[in-house]
Amino acid sequence: MIKDKTKEEAIIKAARQRFAHYGYSKVTMDEIAGDVEMGKASLYYYFPTKENLFQEVILQEQDEFANEIEKVLQKETCAEDKLLQYVDLRLKYFQKLFNLGALSFYSFIEKKSQFKQYYESFEKRELQLMSKIFDEGKRKNEFKNDIDEKVVRVLLHILQGLRLRSLKFIAGQQMDNKSYKELKDEMLMTVQIFLKGIKC
Amino acid sequence: MIKDKTKEEAIIKAARQRFAHYGYSKVTMDEIAGDVEMGKASLYYYFPTKENLFQEVILQEQDEFANEIEKVLQKETCAEDKLLQYVDLRLKYFQKLFNLGALSFYSFIEKKSQFKQYYESFEKRELQLMSKIFDEGKRKNEFKNDIDEKVVRVLLHILQGLRLRSLKFIAGQQMDNKSYKELKDEMLMTVQIFLKGIKC
Repeated sequence: MIKDKTKEEAIIKAARQRFAHYGYSKVTMDEIAGDVEMGKASLYYYFPTKENLFQEVILQEQDEFANEIEKVLQKETCAEDKLLQYVDLRLKYFQKLFNLGALSFYSFIEKKSQFKQYYESFEKRELQLMSKIFDEGKRKNEFKNDIDEKVVRVLLHILQGLRLRSLKFIAGQQMDNKSYKELKDEMLMTVQIFLKGIKC
Repeated sequence: MIKDKTKEEAIIKAARQRFAHYGYSKVTMDEIAGDVEMGKASLYYYFPTKENLFQEVILQEQDEFANEIEKVLQKETCAEDKLLQYVDLRLKYFQKLFNLGALSFYSFIEKKSQFKQYYESFEKRELQLMSKIFDEGKRKNEFKNDIDEKVVRVLLHILQGLRLRSLKFIAGQQMDNKSYKELKDEMLMTVQIFLKGIKC
């Protein structure tokens, strides 16, 4: 049996919608099989476990996020603008992961988390994307020339910390508008003050 | 029976030393009774549970921290200096709580944590102390005049987030020097950049 690319994509798409709506833990493989009108055995041929399918969904989300950032990087705006757009897109991505059921306090500390490797490789990717913006800012004399990777990393950690502490205050299974807005305001204020602090 | 103030203080002192050395969960009331050469029944007369005793220790730590900050507030230095000293003392306090066994990821999210009320009242106190420094900075024209409580709060949350994410990376039961130094460097860098961002 050969895997049909169109079928595979249809499965991922259906899974993504279900996970986003109900959260990872509440979705069954039966339901996904039903969505794509496929027998359960065929579904398992494509994805042997729900975890496999979920990882694929997360990888897609990561790629989409990175592509959106690459588009921002091409824009003809100043580095500050790009960084604010970065924060906005990063928060949307966070909300998506949260609603998928991929994020919780526990997933952050859990050492054996099945998603650990994805989070770690994503953090490296994020550092690279942010560094590009900072490099551009230095090159165009927006930011001071002595900004090094340490500074980029500290901003990455600040934003991570703010998201992390916010997880405590999100009551439901889906990220509500109030939590989203509060976190967004805080992150934008942080970046604005931070950038003033490193401006030429 | 009337409680003897000297005895009570001796118990708290002994408990504090033991908790700091071994962590809350590993200490028994028997050991503390032994330290102060007291029968177990008498110890329970003073503190009916280990939790009661622990709460008293935490309250003492909080008071000591607040007193140290009040001293910093009286100093003849600029607000920026005071804030950097604040961060330094706050981190030392964090380390103490961590070593006592009062801090973990779980204690932060646990809704029914017995220490929740202390953490919450402490956060309010912290906001007040930091606000005093910011007010002074505005009065002396170090900081911009439009700095409001939102800005103070966001810095409080940034520092909280950095400490919180660091909890993941501390391997042992006691906070090691490497983790301490990394976190300190990150926090000082953050405050320095942040303050440049709100300077007049």
